[in-house]
This record gives sequence, structure tokens and C-alpha cells, in this order.
Amino acid sequence: MPDKVKRNICLTIEYDGTNYCGWQVQNHSKSVSTSSPSIQATIESALRKILQEKIKLIASGRTDAGVHALGQVANFHTRSKLPLERIQKALNSLLSRDISIIKIEVVADDFHSRFSAKSKLYRYTILARPHHSAFLKNQVYFMPFPIDVLLMQKEARALLGRHNFKAFQATQKKERNPFKTIKRVKIVKSADLLTIDIEADGFLYNMVRNIVGTLVEIGRGRRAPGSLKKILLSKDRKLAGPNAPARGLALLKVKY
Amino acid sequence: MPDKVKRNICLTIEYDGTNYCGWQVQNHSKSVSTSSPSIQATIESALRKILQEKIKLIASGRTDAGVHALGQVANFHTRSKLPLERIQKALNSLLSRDISIIKIEVVADDFHSRFSAKSKLYRYTILARPHHSAFLKNQVYFMPFPIDVLLMQKEARALLGRHNFKAFQATQKKERNPFKTIKRVKIVKSADLLTIDIEADGFLYNMVRNIVGTLVEIGRGRRAPGSLKKILLSKDRKLAGPNAPARGLALLKVKY
Repeated sequence: MPDKVKRNICLTIEYDGTNYCGWQVQNHSKSVSTSSPSIQATIESALRKILQEKIKLIASGRTDAGVHALGQVANFHTRSKLPLERIQKALNSLLSRDISIIKIEVVADDFHSRFSAKSKLYRYTILARPHHSAFLKNQVYFMPFPIDVLLMQKEARALLGRHNFKAFQATQKKERNPFKTIKRVKIVKSADLLTIDIEADGFLYNMVRNIVGTLVEIGRGRRAPGSLKKILLSKDRKLAGPNAPARGLALLKVKY
Repeated sequence: MPDKVKRNICLTIEYDGTNYCGWQVQNHSKSVSTSSPSIQATIESALRKILQEKIKLIASGRTDAGVHALGQVANFHTRSKLPLERIQKALNSLLSRDISIIKIEVVADDFHSRFSAKSKLYRYTILARPHHSAFLKNQVYFMPFPIDVLLMQKEARALLGRHNFKAFQATQKKERNPFKTIKRVKIVKSADLLTIDIEADGFLYNMVRNIVGTLVEIGRGRRAPGSLKKILLSKDRKLAGPNAPARGLALLKVKY
């Protein structure tokens, strides 16, 4: 029976992940001592101060250390009657400038940021020019080599649809359902910025960064035509390219 | 007599000024102990390592602590015969990611980054929306209040032309020629970003930030129409608005 006195509140969150260990402390790094906080713990602690109540945030999914978000979604249940606008203002003044609550709304009791999500859209950004950028240093993968965008676009078509994406799953991660549906891959070069947008109903751990690492090798002419499809069908992580750096990745949007 | 064995080399430089005490240690802060390095000393030290020669950089002008540049210009004379491309590559790999050498070229012997400049273009950026930005935190002045852009544009017209700009000069700075010619003022709001571009043949110390601080008060409805002209004519710094924060300011371009 739903708790009628509790509101289910949903936040849309923008963050620069550079100085955080990720949305949440990752399981496999529990043994590693880390001095940087998680985004989740940072927001939960601010909410606790504002609402005088212990709050558990449910996010659409985790993001890794150094990965950013322009539209992470997370909801929580609270007995507090504080107006939404005041919660948002209080959060934005308590939180560090690395995190911004860009939207706040009351959602249905059964809304769940992760289970209700239909798809997620990630963007990977590469700076493709001879010299780096002083302003985007933590937000792009700097690539001072020629890169063939057309070749990347052609090869990327093999990713569309429902596949077993095990070849692009982080090796240190335990088995889970490796079948995902990629709905859209869009590779665009505008001036010096090359962006790779991937929308899917779900992602395996490190999947976007492993796909990007492979696509970059393709763009640099280091893989024969048809490689991406072969790697995908092999389900063998060892055949794929390296994991691209976290700083180029951002969760753009979660669709419900 | 020009030294025929010396080349005069000109750099175009992009930098994020957040972690620097400015282009150069400012005279008036010589007594203050500062732990952050200057942009100039950082680049000179890298050049010394690369060229095995003591190098003196001549910039188009100083920028303050926290102020950025997309197109600072600085030249130096050297006996080194190292190809330009190698100097640029070596600089960009030695320098921190906060500084990027975006162009390098040989210029005429008598070219002087400061004296040869015809005008400089500064941009001040304001983020005008209720919540801050996780990504632009060090590059904008965050303004969560309504602001009347039309009013700012109207008042700013009084700045155009040759005037005594003493009213907008930092009080701690010693007297120098206070007459400058503002060639262009362009105030544009696009989405949440309000940019104020000012091009002049020269600027007094803190002039752009003092003008912006005044324009912001105008945009917030805190000054009567005609105030900007009155302040300008008064030559009285006490009548102008506060000095806007350094982080919103960037030297966009120097024209020769």
C-alpha cells in the first residue's frame, strides 16, 4: 500500500564528475581506498540536512569516476512538506559548484528512476585537433591525430539493434544479461569536436567507453573494414579496443 | 641594428586563468605572498627548457588572477633554429593542460605584442538562470536574478567613442592616460548566457569588470536611465558599480 503522506520527488542533475569517485562507490573498488566522495552521497547528505530525514536516492544508473552528466535522473521519497522550489534552492546553495539541480518535480508513487527508464543517451566527446583545449581539458578525449569520421560512421551501423554486447563489457565485472538494444548511434564532427551519441535501453559496465575505444582505432585506420561487426559477434572483450578515458563521457538524457 | 641571427616568434595562447595569479605577478600585489604561478613565468620556464636559452615573453597586456584568454598574443626573440612546429609541440606537452599554444609564427623583427596592437576584444560572460552550471563554474558570473538586456544595451551606447574612463579604473592603480576609445560594445543573450563584448584601443586596470558591474546593476533595475553616461562623465570611481568577478572575463582577440 503506497504511503500517502510521502511524496516521490524526482531530480534532474547536472554534474562535472572530475573530482568524484562516480555516482556511487563502485563494488569492485570497495577494497581500494578512495579519498574522493560519490555524487550520490554528496546529494544525500545535503538532502538530509535540508529535510531533517535520512534520504535514499534512486538514480537511473551509476556513472563512473570522472564521467559527467547533463541529465542524470534520481528520485527519493520523503515525508517533508517543504515546497519543491525551496528544496531545489537549498540544494543548489549547499552543494559544491560541481553539481547543479536543474529540475525538481513530484512524480507518481511508483516512479523508479532506474526501472521506469525506457532508454539512456550517452555522449562521448573527442577533441580532434593538434593542440589541446585549456577549457575542455576535463570534458574531452584529446586526439591530435587524423581521424576518419566516415569510416567510423559506416562501421558503427553494426551496433544498431538487439545484440549480445559482451565483447564491450568490462572484464572485471560479473556476468549479467549482456543483451541490450542500441536504438541510435550518431557520430558528428563539428569544427574540432567529434561527438559519438549512443542511445540504448541499457548499457553494460564500460560499454560506451569500450565501443568508443574501438571506434577510435577504426577511425585511425588501425582496423580492417568490418571489424566492429566481427568483434561484436565474437563476444570476446580481448578483441575490442581499449577503454576510452572517462572524462570524455557524459550521460545526456534519460528517457521515460 | 636588428640582430639577424635572432627570430621574433609570436604565440597565440589560450588559457584557463583559474589557478594562476594572472599573466604576470601584479605590481600592487608584490608584497602579498601568492602560491599560484603566473601564466608568463610558466610559459617562459617551458621555453627555457626547450630552447636552452633565457626567454622574455612580451604580451599584448596583462590579465588578472582568474581571468581567461582565448587569444592572448605574446612574442619573444630567440637564437634557436628549432622548427616552429617542434617548439609548439614541445610547449604543449610541457605545459599544464590549463594553457594551450594554439598558433606559432615568425613575425617582423619590430613586431611588439603590446605596442603593435590596434585593439583588444574582451568578452564577459554571465549565466542568467536560476541554477548554476557544473561545467562553466569557473568561466561565468552566475546571476540567478531577472536581468533587462534591452536596458543594458541602451545604456551601454554611452560608452562608445573616446572618453576619459577614470570612473571605471581600479582605485588602487596609479594614474596613467585615462583616455581610451571603445570601438564596439555588443551585449547578446543567447539561451541562458549573456555576453558583453567590449573592443577598445586599450583598457585601464579593471575597466571591463567595473563597466560590467555597473551594467549588471542597470540590468537589475537598480540605476536610473542615463546613469552610465553620468558615471562616465563624473570620472568618479565611487559612483560606478562593483568590480564584476574575474572568472567571467576572457581576452578573446588582439587585433594588429
